[in-house]
Amino acid sequence: MDALVFDGTLRFVHDHPLPALAPGEALIRPHLAGICNTDIEITRGYMAFRGVLGHEFVGTVVACDEAAWVGRRVVGEINAACLRCPTCARGDYTHCPERTTLGIDRRDGAMAELLRLPIACLHEVPASVPDEAAVFVEPLAAALEILEQCHLRPSERVAVVGDGKLGALVAQVLRLPGCEVTLVGRHPERWELFERMGISCVRPDEALGRFDLVVDCTGQPAGLATARRLVRPRGRLVLKSTFHAPSELNLTMLAVDEVTLVGSRCGPFAPALRLLASGQITTGPLISARYPLSEGVAAFQAAGGRLKVLLEIS
Amino acid sequence: MDALVFDGTLRFVHDHPLPALAPGEALIRPHLAGICNTDIEITRGYMAFRGVLGHEFVGTVVACDEAAWVGRRVVGEINAACLRCPTCARGDYTHCPERTTLGIDRRDGAMAELLRLPIACLHEVPASVPDEAAVFVEPLAAALEILEQCHLRPSERVAVVGDGKLGALVAQVLRLPGCEVTLVGRHPERWELFERMGISCVRPDEALGRFDLVVDCTGQPAGLATARRLVRPRGRLVLKSTFHAPSELNLTMLAVDEVTLVGSRCGPFAPALRLLASGQITTGPLISARYPLSEGVAAFQAAGGRLKVLLEIS
Repeated sequence: MDALVFDGTLRFVHDHPLPALAPGEALIRPHLAGICNTDIEITRGYMAFRGVLGHEFVGTVVACDEAAWVGRRVVGEINAACLRCPTCARGDYTHCPERTTLGIDRRDGAMAELLRLPIACLHEVPASVPDEAAVFVEPLAAALEILEQCHLRPSERVAVVGDGKLGALVAQVLRLPGCEVTLVGRHPERWELFERMGISCVRPDEALGRFDLVVDCTGQPAGLATARRLVRPRGRLVLKSTFHAPSELNLTMLAVDEVTLVGSRCGPFAPALRLLASGQITTGPLISARYPLSEGVAAFQAAGGRLKVLLEIS
Repeated sequence: MDALVFDGTLRFVHDHPLPALAPGEALIRPHLAGICNTDIEITRGYMAFRGVLGHEFVGTVVACDEAAWVGRRVVGEINAACLRCPTCARGDYTHCPERTTLGIDRRDGAMAELLRLPIACLHEVPASVPDEAAVFVEPLAAALEILEQCHLRPSERVAVVGDGKLGALVAQVLRLPGCEVTLVGRHPERWELFERMGISCVRPDEALGRFDLVVDCTGQPAGLATARRLVRPRGRLVLKSTFHAPSELNLTMLAVDEVTLVGSRCGPFAPALRLLASGQITTGPLISARYPLSEGVAAFQAAGGRLKVLLEIS
């Protein structure tokens, strides 16, 4: 089948083997896949992944043990857990030590004509949510994970560092409880869009005062340093970035300032679908470009400096 | 007056100037002072402090604007805050950006015949708490700060890394809610003492499984690495150490494992005094040696590999 594969080099191939379903898995034909910063980091060596890229998708189930799923339009959680270990028993499926992760860790991803995922990972997409919105469910769920982890009070001042695709979703999510959210970035050409959502945007050197909660969405050590500088004593610094480069923080000053650092990764899909269905989160303007799967390599080259780039698959 | 001073070199001097009281301050004659790891780090360059060392003390008020305090036996919070800025208005006195800190930052410490502190920092010591216990109030309060910051459930498994003086207090504090506490260290000669308190002790390579909450009390990068290794995904890692050496953590793996890092410093004195008065915390066996103030340099040399070393002042 056609697939966008990373084997040390990113390439579009016609002859990738078809997925072989394990018991309990569904075969899915993706319609759209999104390019995430993590995908770009993978092509730089992150996770030492080899295989089909892509973990943000919306598609249709084409085969499955449970016949009721066939034909349904779905999005899928990306961590395939064992469901048997103590970590899974605690409900921490996304941290199962046996897990494979779609397009990230020992499991072929969604940038192909077909993919496989456990049925347990699937969520049906309501008819009111178009493909172009549903393809954002995975990163939106990751943004919602912050609200799962942190009690965010409506009166708190929040800064989101990084005015890219993830930052735009995180800023929208963190204003849901009523917080004053400032987006800190270096791309003023994007700010009109965010300011229409009620999010004020500033350059790193223009961010005044300290914030109660700061999220680093930059994927870069320099962004992390900015985020650290903006947190007030006893405030919270959320790490949303995963990057291949080594990163450094002065941990002694973290103790002195009693800052809490919150590592944050995958989040809940059901609330993400609800927020898209209700229109509380806007994704349309975040789409910069669409490419056919066969032009995936060019799409990756374009994706670095853009908001969301989508691959059209079926 | 006699004082133990660090001016690039640690020395005992006879001619240190007497403290000049600012309005609202008390003059205190310390009885005992404890040597803390932070003191040792200061003699290695931490905080670039110059002056009289010492922030753990018990003593008697000898002069004060508020006459009622004179003659009382007291311990003292070490952060002298401005009480006027927005940080103080929020109640975060220990994070006041204008603060000076006893024996640590721009304020002479307690290893001298006399010291000065704002009256607002003082806590009277109940008659039932002897000097030898009261001198532990400051580090015990720092241990209690963890319970101020973290909701610790009785069913959680806790590891304290570092079987030194701070680790011994932290382990005692974290078993208060009923948690199973394991002390991880390299000094088996101290463990009989801890095991009598119901705390099991192991070497770093013997600590099995992952823990819900791990505290680093080692003051060393290697200890931090051990602590990190012991935290379960979605667990909490508390940083109690302040050290002069640079420290490193893989922040991407912190995000992947969704670990929360909690920087932790000074804590509440009143509960520390209550726990000492009630006998819930044991300090007597933690005292390794006592030296007169005039032998302070020798005391510092001895303190590195020991539990608590006290200086007898008056």
